[in-house]
Parts: sequence; structure tokens; C-alpha cells
Amino acid sequence: MTRPEPATARGEETRRQIIDAALRLFEQNGYTKTTMRAIAGEAGVSVGNAYYYFTSKEHLVQGFYQQIQALHEQQVEQRTRGDSLAARWQTMELAFVDVAAPYHEFGGKFFASAADPTSPLSPFSDESRPARETSTAIIRNLVIGDDVKGDKRLMAELPNLLWLAHMGIVLFWVHDRSPDQQRTRLLIRRIAPLVERVVVLSRLRPLRPILYPALDLIQDLGN
Amino acid sequence: MTRPEPATARGEETRRQIIDAALRLFEQNGYTKTTMRAIAGEAGVSVGNAYYYFTSKEHLVQGFYQQIQALHEQQVEQRTRGDSLAARWQTMELAFVDVAAPYHEFGGKFFASAADPTSPLSPFSDESRPARETSTAIIRNLVIGDDVKGDKRLMAELPNLLWLAHMGIVLFWVHDRSPDQQRTRLLIRRIAPLVERVVVLSRLRPLRPILYPALDLIQDLGN
Repeated sequence: MTRPEPATARGEETRRQIIDAALRLFEQNGYTKTTMRAIAGEAGVSVGNAYYYFTSKEHLVQGFYQQIQALHEQQVEQRTRGDSLAARWQTMELAFVDVAAPYHEFGGKFFASAADPTSPLSPFSDESRPARETSTAIIRNLVIGDDVKGDKRLMAELPNLLWLAHMGIVLFWVHDRSPDQQRTRLLIRRIAPLVERVVVLSRLRPLRPILYPALDLIQDLGN
Repeated sequence: MTRPEPATARGEETRRQIIDAALRLFEQNGYTKTTMRAIAGEAGVSVGNAYYYFTSKEHLVQGFYQQIQALHEQQVEQRTRGDSLAARWQTMELAFVDVAAPYHEFGGKFFASAADPTSPLSPFSDESRPARETSTAIIRNLVIGDDVKGDKRLMAELPNLLWLAHMGIVLFWVHDRSPDQQRTRLLIRRIAPLVERVVVLSRLRPLRPILYPALDLIQDLGN
């Protein structure tokens, strides 16, 4: 989608400047009305230079998604991850709220564009596949451990299910008007033990008539 | 919110004309850019007359929500409702897809406004409370019967939970680009048996450590 991140520190700095300038203009004037020319001007680079890093506004937003995710992954790796699935999931989601906090105001305004069914900015679009896969990989590598034994089919699907749950958290976060997004943080703390219990209880045989058709359905919808 | 529906057939006809004119203009020019003056012009009534029926654009949209719901309720009442919770729930949701079909194109465009966290048009807003309560009443009276025995606490909360599930169906429907919204219809058919199984299995004691904290959480979030 976007060009590979340039190897030089200067290139990275320019990339980040362009993204920051774009976010400022999106917040002021809306996504649709902001042109690449205006973004280049705001960032203090030539239009050609802006296009060198991002071939379109959409690619620029995808670059922003990737920037947030890189920060998120760093944060999750640095923090004590705890020795239970519940603790690791909670750490991961709370780290997201911290990392995304500077963009909360912007998120509310930008949401209308990303929620558009046909938009390449939607987290479910083809264009967002790389961002989706990075997110799922963070979940697979840093949240799900081999200490938790759930139903085999559920465990195979768990990274994707927790990514969907993360989209639910983001949806709640966008709508959260409480100071410092305290309601989202509370939601995460209260859901965390439930995530682990669902995985543990998934091995109960009487639950299969719910669990397996639900997994089939989610897989079919993804295709 | 809106003035009580006028008793005369002529008043009802005018009301409907104004709503239809508004939807046409919202679709053409977007919700924000459409004025009450333009709506009155499109409907062929005076501006004063338009304001008599709807004191603002928001009230007009709430009137539209109510109109859709009255149609929906009629449909659900008329159709054979089936003798199981699964069948009744499926009938209710499929009737929604039928009734809302003429507004599907509009729904996609309007979604950005209704999805705005702070908008009075959001289904979760104070302004949408009457629409929410009508919807919940349809579910309570026409879907949940006394033939299904689930956990007592779950049963008490079930109308609200099925309303939330309905919002999930609407979210999926808005994003559904398949002809005649076939994907949403398929989703409804496949979820229907699961809804009934969740209710039946809710009486299993080992599930309480998930069920009760989840019910507490949903109640707390609603307050």
C-alpha cells in the first residue's frame, strides 16, 4: 500500500511530519476537503515530496494506522504482561487507550469517514488489510499464550475474534466522552476476566451447539 | 420530542410528505447542508407549516424513525410469528430488512450523521429514547414469549439485550452491499437458532461466572 518506511532517520521524520500535518488539517477542515497540496504546505514540504511518501490521502491514513500500531506494539512489549490471559489482554487494550489518547478528539471527527461502508479507510477494507494483520499479530504473539487451554477450534480463531473485540473497544472509545476515557478503561478492566473465562469454559461440551455454529458463521462472513 | 401525530388523515399525509421530501434532500445534499426551508419547498408546504409538524431537522429524523417503527410493528404483527423464540426473532429481524429496504441507499449516506457520538440522531442519544423504547416494546411483546425459560436475570434484561443485538444487525445491514441485502438475511437466519440456544443454556450453573458479570456490566454502562 504505502512505500516501505524509508531507512534514514530523516526520511522517517519527514514521514511523521506529513502525517501530523494531515491530522491537523483533517481535524480543522474535515477529511474530504483536505487536499494533498494543503497537507504538503502545512508540513513544509513540496507536493512532489509528499507524494513520494504517500501516493494518496488514503495511503496517508493507512500510514497513520501503522504509526499508531508500531507505538502500540512497543508499549505492549515494554509493560509487564502478567501471567494470565486476562492480565495480558487488559495490558494490551489499556496500552491502546494510552497510545491513542492524543488522537481521541480527532478520532471522533474522523470516525464518520472510517465508518463509511465503502471507504478504503474502514478497518474492514482490503486497503486496511496490512493494518489488520499487524494488529492480529500483536494479539497472537503478545496476548494469547500457551498457558490457556480452550476449545481447539476456538483457539485457532482466537486472534481474529480478539481483533473483532478490539474493534468493539475502539467503537466504544470513539464514543467515550468521559475525561481521560475513564469509561473505556473501566470497560476493559471488567471485560478482561470474562475473556479468560469464555476461553476456559469453551471446552464445556453443552456449549458446542452455540460455539461451533458461531465460529462457522464468523468464518463464513470473513470470506 | 415531535408533536403528537395529528388526528386527521390529511395531517398524517402532510407529515409523511415532509419526511419523504427531507429524505430526498438528505440523500442528494447531505444532512448538514439541507435546511428546513429547502425541505418545506421540496414538500410543497410553507416553512411555517413544516415547523408546525417538526420543530427542527432532528425532530424530523426522529419522526422518520417512528414511521419506520410503526411499519415494522405492523409487519411483525401480521406475519405468522412461529412457535419458537428463534422463529419469532427471525421474523422480527427479516421484517425489519423488508421495511427498511427502500431506505438502504439512504441509510449508507445517513450513517455518518447517526454514528456521530454526540449527535441527537444516534440511536443511543436522549433524543432517541422514544424510538428506542418503541423498538424494545416490539421485542418484549412480539418476540419474547413465556414458552422459553432462561435464567431469570437474563430474561429480565432480554428485551434490552435483543435491542442491542438489533443495533448490531442494523450496523451490518448498513454495510451490506449484496443485492437485496441477502447477506443480512442470511446472517439473521443463522443467528436465530443461536439466540434461542443462548437463552436455554443460560440456566447452566457453570456459565454464571460469565453471564452475571456480563449482565452487571451492561446494566452499569446503561446508567
